[in-house]
Amino acid sequence: VSVDIEIVCVGNELLIGKVENTNAYWLVKHATALGVNVKRITVIEDTVKVIGDTICEVLSHKPQFIITTGGLGPTFDDKTLQGIAAGLGRKLEVNEVALQMVKEKTMEYLKTRGLPPEVELTPPRVKMATLPKGSVPVTNPVGSAPGVRVDLPKTVLFALPGVPLEMEAIFTLSIAPLLQAAVGDTVFCQKSLYLNGMFESKLAPLIDVVMVANQGVYIKSHPILAENKSHTEIHLTMRAKAIEKPAQKIQKAAEQLAILIKQNGGVVSE
Amino acid sequence: VSVDIEIVCVGNELLIGKVENTNAYWLVKHATALGVNVKRITVIEDTVKVIGDTICEVLSHKPQFIITTGGLGPTFDDKTLQGIAAGLGRKLEVNEVALQMVKEKTMEYLKTRGLPPEVELTPPRVKMATLPKGSVPVTNPVGSAPGVRVDLPKTVLFALPGVPLEMEAIFTLSIAPLLQAAVGDTVFCQKSLYLNGMFESKLAPLIDVVMVANQGVYIKSHPILAENKSHTEIHLTMRAKAIEKPAQKIQKAAEQLAILIKQNGGVVSE
Repeated sequence: VSVDIEIVCVGNELLIGKVENTNAYWLVKHATALGVNVKRITVIEDTVKVIGDTICEVLSHKPQFIITTGGLGPTFDDKTLQGIAAGLGRKLEVNEVALQMVKEKTMEYLKTRGLPPEVELTPPRVKMATLPKGSVPVTNPVGSAPGVRVDLPKTVLFALPGVPLEMEAIFTLSIAPLLQAAVGDTVFCQKSLYLNGMFESKLAPLIDVVMVANQGVYIKSHPILAENKSHTEIHLTMRAKAIEKPAQKIQKAAEQLAILIKQNGGVVSE
Repeated sequence: VSVDIEIVCVGNELLIGKVENTNAYWLVKHATALGVNVKRITVIEDTVKVIGDTICEVLSHKPQFIITTGGLGPTFDDKTLQGIAAGLGRKLEVNEVALQMVKEKTMEYLKTRGLPPEVELTPPRVKMATLPKGSVPVTNPVGSAPGVRVDLPKTVLFALPGVPLEMEAIFTLSIAPLLQAAVGDTVFCQKSLYLNGMFESKLAPLIDVVMVANQGVYIKSHPILAENKSHTEIHLTMRAKAIEKPAQKIQKAAEQLAILIKQNGGVVSE
């Protein structure tokens, strides 16, 4: 019953370490909070072939949703829509609604700067409104490149701009409500415990015991090395229908694990 | 002639936004600085099937190197070596050299804490030394789980721990020299210009002109929205043999672009 999503981030800047992939981090946090299951993040370069091949690869995993970020702008290296069109075997065509969006956003921008509202539809501007056949433009409340929605047989694909403020605005306005509806009453709950004075290798069998006794609760330990002192964060998570009371189940598992740790000589805190 | 690498980050914590993927960012920066071409980053969950399938998928792209991060520890959710074994169709077996490494590191750790150097080889400790058949353990100067190297027909695969200090130490000690040797005298150069007062859509055709005139120089513009003021960073990069003088070629392209921008009414700075 889980709603799966994959994220595809397009941009050489992410593969050369020019820019940190804050978009992926923001998206997974927000999608997870809605109860969605993020299955994969793929970061790829700006070439039509790689984008197209990756879209095909990701579609073969049959996620309910795909979100791409980056590559919707007016410059030559903005190739995401060409890549999606290639991957889906669709033609690109100028979308009149998208063209109107580009025009209006550019006029707004000129107005706020006290410039005359004359918008020439130059090839780079028309490019931002040239979408894979059958797709629908999605309002971008911040920038001039619209988001793009493509409805496929088992998957809804959204292409979002790479500028964080634009990506976040479109997600919040047009995607989050859709994910929320798909997820229904599934929620994601989490809780952390902090452990000192015990090897992770000694903790491992205790986690196994608690997970067997608390089906559905996932427990993962994260060793943290800082300032030459080591400790471990134990992170308990559960994604389930609200009626299954996941927060209570996590709490119960955490209490059981804390008791086992103390019995085995460890020090645990919340 | 480019040396291609793919990065695979394993860990549910990266897909739920619990932890930012600083490992990928660190790796791409360091690999790029060495002149390596990072082709893709894939972030996946902790299941043997997904890890195995992803390794097969990535191998099909034929990169010279693959680096995985995460999932080498002693707990049940550390499944990267099982996943790699499944993907490659190899058995897992206890590696005596790795077992000795785990033992020594644990003894060192106990010593620094003034504890008796008795190391019991419990199943979670043996697990860290259970590697896909035919692989070689790689010294971890920081933690107890060794890195793992698997030599495949066209690809060398390294599995590194997810703890950043451990991952960075193994990369620096054992992988960077190998990448440097593979890359030879190829270098990566970059330079930024900052643009004000011009739409990206007006900049786009100027970039096209300069890229055609300066083969090999890649120019990408990044719109930056901050505090309700917009400007654009123009990033010029080139990966080439040192003898081709990429830094000079980038400088020449930047100068040509700056002139075109000024002629078209924009304000450009370094």
